[in-house]
Amino acid sequence: MIFLKNDYSLGAHPTVMDALIETNLELTDGYGEDKYCTQAAELIKRLFACPDADVHFLTGGTQTNQTALAAFLLRPHWSVISADTGHICVHETGAIEATGHKINHVKTPDGKLTPELIKEVLIFHEDEHYVLPKAIYISNSTETGLIYTKAELQALRECCDKHGLLIYLDGARMAMALTCEDNDLTFEDFPKLADAFYIGGTKCGAMFGEALVIVNDALKPDFRFLIKQRGGLLAKGRLLGVQFQALLDNDLYLELGRHANRLAKMLAEGIAAKGYEFCIPPQTNLIFPMFPKELEAELRKKVMYETWPVVTETHQAIRLVTSWGSTEEEVRGFLELI
Amino acid sequence: MIFLKNDYSLGAHPTVMDALIETNLELTDGYGEDKYCTQAAELIKRLFACPDADVHFLTGGTQTNQTALAAFLLRPHWSVISADTGHICVHETGAIEATGHKINHVKTPDGKLTPELIKEVLIFHEDEHYVLPKAIYISNSTETGLIYTKAELQALRECCDKHGLLIYLDGARMAMALTCEDNDLTFEDFPKLADAFYIGGTKCGAMFGEALVIVNDALKPDFRFLIKQRGGLLAKGRLLGVQFQALLDNDLYLELGRHANRLAKMLAEGIAAKGYEFCIPPQTNLIFPMFPKELEAELRKKVMYETWPVVTETHQAIRLVTSWGSTEEEVRGFLELI
Amino acid sequence: MIFLKNDYSLGAHPTVMDALIETNLELTDGYGEDKYCTQAAELIKRLFACPDADVHFLTGGTQTNQTALAAFLLRPHWSVISADTGHICVHETGAIEATGHKINHVKTPDGKLTPELIKEVLIFHEDEHYVLPKAIYISNSTETGLIYTKAELQALRECCDKHGLLIYLDGARMAMALTCEDNDLTFEDFPKLADAFYIGGTKCGAMFGEALVIVNDALKPDFRFLIKQRGGLLAKGRLLGVQFQALLDNDLYLELGRHANRLAKMLAEGIAAKGYEFCIPPQTNLIFPMFPKELEAELRKKVMYETWPVVTETHQAIRLVTSWGSTEEEVRGFLELI
Amino acid sequence: MIFLKNDYSLGAHPTVMDALIETNLELTDGYGEDKYCTQAAELIKRLFACPDADVHFLTGGTQTNQTALAAFLLRPHWSVISADTGHICVHETGAIEATGHKINHVKTPDGKLTPELIKEVLIFHEDEHYVLPKAIYISNSTETGLIYTKAELQALRECCDKHGLLIYLDGARMAMALTCEDNDLTFEDFPKLADAFYIGGTKCGAMFGEALVIVNDALKPDFRFLIKQRGGLLAKGRLLGVQFQALLDNDLYLELGRHANRLAKMLAEGIAAKGYEFCIPPQTNLIFPMFPKELEAELRKKVMYETWPVVTETHQAIRLVTSWGSTEEEVRGFLELI
Repeated sequence: MIFLKNDYSLGAHPTVMDALIETNLELTDGYGEDKYCTQAAELIKRLFACPDADVHFLTGGTQTNQTALAAFLLRPHWSVISADTGHICVHETGAIEATGHKINHVKTPDGKLTPELIKEVLIFHEDEHYVLPKAIYISNSTETGLIYTKAELQALRECCDKHGLLIYLDGARMAMALTCEDNDLTFEDFPKLADAFYIGGTKCGAMFGEALVIVNDALKPDFRFLIKQRGGLLAKGRLLGVQFQALLDNDLYLELGRHANRLAKMLAEGIAAKGYEFCIPPQTNLIFPMFPKELEAELRKKVMYETWPVVTETHQAIRLVTSWGSTEEEVRGFLELI
Repeated sequence: MIFLKNDYSLGAHPTVMDALIETNLELTDGYGEDKYCTQAAELIKRLFACPDADVHFLTGGTQTNQTALAAFLLRPHWSVISADTGHICVHETGAIEATGHKINHVKTPDGKLTPELIKEVLIFHEDEHYVLPKAIYISNSTETGLIYTKAELQALRECCDKHGLLIYLDGARMAMALTCEDNDLTFEDFPKLADAFYIGGTKCGAMFGEALVIVNDALKPDFRFLIKQRGGLLAKGRLLGVQFQALLDNDLYLELGRHANRLAKMLAEGIAAKGYEFCIPPQTNLIFPMFPKELEAELRKKVMYETWPVVTETHQAIRLVTSWGSTEEEVRGFLELI
Repeated sequence: MIFLKNDYSLGAHPTVMDALIETNLELTDGYGEDKYCTQAAELIKRLFACPDADVHFLTGGTQTNQTALAAFLLRPHWSVISADTGHICVHETGAIEATGHKINHVKTPDGKLTPELIKEVLIFHEDEHYVLPKAIYISNSTETGLIYTKAELQALRECCDKHGLLIYLDGARMAMALTCEDNDLTFEDFPKLADAFYIGGTKCGAMFGEALVIVNDALKPDFRFLIKQRGGLLAKGRLLGVQFQALLDNDLYLELGRHANRLAKMLAEGIAAKGYEFCIPPQTNLIFPMFPKELEAELRKKVMYETWPVVTETHQAIRLVTSWGSTEEEVRGFLELI
Repeated sequence: MIFLKNDYSLGAHPTVMDALIETNLELTDGYGEDKYCTQAAELIKRLFACPDADVHFLTGGTQTNQTALAAFLLRPHWSVISADTGHICVHETGAIEATGHKINHVKTPDGKLTPELIKEVLIFHEDEHYVLPKAIYISNSTETGLIYTKAELQALRECCDKHGLLIYLDGARMAMALTCEDNDLTFEDFPKLADAFYIGGTKCGAMFGEALVIVNDALKPDFRFLIKQRGGLLAKGRLLGVQFQALLDNDLYLELGRHANRLAKMLAEGIAAKGYEFCIPPQTNLIFPMFPKELEAELRKKVMYETWPVVTETHQAIRLVTSWGSTEEEVRGFLELI
């Protein structure tokens, strides 16, 4: 079977694994209060040019989104606006609502929020009979494989500043977002554009782990209490520091994103060359070709992937995902099948 | 000013007030464990032909919806499906989400759920990465002033039975629903069609109060604990029993609904006669005419009402509401203005 | 039966009832945005000498405690310290925990918190593995029928200021606290000593209702959202304003407290004169005599009261409660029985 | 520095690490639906003789306790009884209350629950004004380093069955409990005595991870939804299966517990031989000697450990912890210091 199902099925990148092996029998303080976490946090603050940020390491994306948003939505009636394709809307089993907060779901053409879409939500919420939107959730790259441009994020920032909204950015696939050909963002832009964001590890070379960066001072106090309360304070916290240090040293993190994007592009170009179309234009490591239903039925016998809920009378969309561990051989293998 | 703004601005109907005055200085057990609550519950079970139901009295609609749904959605990942115009979606400040549960918002043409709309939600929620829909919320009459027919409710019941969904019916305006000309439901139909429902008092003649009827045995245990935990167990609980007895004796409840509907019809016919249209066809005591914007600007100087978010280039929709206390004089006064 | 069971079983004091009757058929804005609520709030701000406070009216004590504490404990890891006899600890079915917050239960000799007891809690809570105490809950008079002196409250205020704790005061029986012989507090002291407190209506002459006074600016924003979200925003909110105006005009409120205390004193003196002891020294309208078990068994046939969980080999404690509606005849009747 | 501070500061036992290295670059399904998790679950069901149990793998103890208890306490008013030294009471930042449930804290002489202590709680909770205790939380070994005997657990089981209470057992240190000299339990006893329990990995040789075993059928449905909702469903779930397989094959798990206990015993005997006393009798790998304050002040310069809140005028208690990685050299080094 050719594996194009997701970007979180391999273990750790060998460099990350080596770092874990090397430090395995050290005795350090627990719960992230060790030198590796400190060093990784320093490295992140340097790379992202945010010396005053707080950096926390958590084990997974849903945990990070839930802990951060529940912490940032200070008051019970505050809600968060998200594209209805956002991970928090659909794939986290109501994790945000479980903390007591409403998500304002927004229909979007492509999975990306815009100032206009935000304003429509705000206008509707007029008084105390409604929740009060206080934050937006965006992901970059998105669950639809697209990226935000710097101009788009600046427009969101301006809109949010004007309306008193926080920006929380889910960077589960930040490595791919930043190494996409169309990208014009750098590490240093994130702290300027978001109040808090996380640097995805799980999908970008780590065994597990995400690094949450809190830029806005108002969001910093007591955050460790909240991680602990939600069960996210890993006893052997240094495992996360060790991994992020390995990933972010020597450009490995971006290298892995570049690799995934390069193979996705090879895949997309091959698919397009054979005359197939995409329901979302390919941009990063998630691509969404439409295949004739008969062909799709054949493909699933030889390729592992997920279908995507766009269907016409004759065609079915599927989601193909490449990762840091995907190979040209797999891509070529797939292209031969179509 | 002519008052057509809502149906909860008057105090209690004189008959209800008299009952409160008469019993005011009695000493009874607290928290609803008194003879008046017992008698009112018996009366309700008799009128609705559900001798085995549990009846609880609460003070308001949002409190009733929140307490009931939080109790019925036993497990944290269970969600409730509602038309996105439903009271719980928009006008309760996230009360359901505050209890940890997601509402699956559904766009509808008219504010009414259908089996087809429900099925679309169910298909999308495929595994443990999604919430699990376990109940539907409907109101009759709806927030759009419409009613469900018996056939429509039976179709919902069948659909819900097939898919393991509970039906919770918000009867804030049950008096108006049951006395609408198009209605083919009786008191006795409710326990057959819903697992739980409430009989609205606040908008139908009571000073305050709603009577929650729990039909489904699985939903009954320990419900008083849940009312108490959410602050809804009124110390002088008998106030609610006294009122519902007064309302439901001698057909007063339906009489009040009939009156509101009659005046709304007079209003709607008058408006139509003058050539104006409605963005939702008038059916009960909430009607939604569209007026030219200049006229609407004049009207708001002399009439109290709310606007409705349907706007064209030239027209603005407004919501007019009649109640048990509205007068023909007010209706004629309004019609003279247009 | 002689009724000495509680102080919330009568309806409204006739003066309050008259005010409700008189305003019953007026049309006012809903949800507390009417002239009666405005006037009652102004009256309270004047009587309590806190012109900048926010006043909100809710229907019951548990609802008020839950809504206020959930609002004041902004962050999920913040907890509230309470005597373990406090109403929120035992008689509210976990209402505070249901909002996600821990109560730090404190064993006390008499149901009153002290700086020393608070400090013991604080010392124990050292880092992010523990909750963070951020408020104290006290009631005056307490569930044990005792009152705080001004000096005691000032000591609590000083301690709380030093340690960054808010003071929330439950005044369900404020009328009795302020008219107790040992009392040295006035209305005007409350806003100086508490960050927020409520003036009890249900147990002090109202049909139902409590007036929450928020003094601390930090606790004011958006409070109406929180009342609405917890189902506490009464549609016909004016009912509460009308009642508090009636109660607080012309000293009626304190008059009712004085009456209850006077009868309780008569009762206590009569019991003491016959040689019986008290497990808590009598101070306000809740008194706790100890009777021989055989006598207690006789009493319960002729008097309605609750037992109190203090038992010796030979004696059983009971709780006797007088109210604004108790009569000298009832007191004399009781004394004849012992 | 000699390290006797805790049992979770080393990484993974080399055998566990080897298993992680070996499987690192395999592609498997995510979220625990892979062959390693399946095999580890089968192994656990065989070793614990509970073929019908459900086994889930989570990353840490607080997460496991929170997810399990929130799932088992189905209704909002259900509470869990725990010794007030229990991990959920003090060291989890209010994680249980954050899910809306009250913990009934119980003072105990030694950190262990008994039927008598449970009954005292039950008697106090009489009606719907109180929470309803529905489960007990126990840990074996306890946070005080003690174990339950089979007879003690059977007595708890009998008491809980009689009163409709579930038993949840926290086995964070199950390896040490089962290899303690005084122990008379085997793996096979756990499913008979508890409705659900977890096999601790983090403190017993794993890099991270706990295996939750759900025995009671009523607690099984939809548990994966709840893990996901609380952020505990690890994307690369196989990491947990791989580790538990490595630990539980070939008796490694118990071997590691035996080692920790053996060194703790050596330490305790050495301390006793020098004439010092213990505030809790030493039994497993957590021991609590009392040292003269001057000596304690010296010790902390050369040994890493935590103090314990038992102090006399002259002595201070400390907590010493041995682990699978502790050495005889460290123990001898400590004994030389006293």
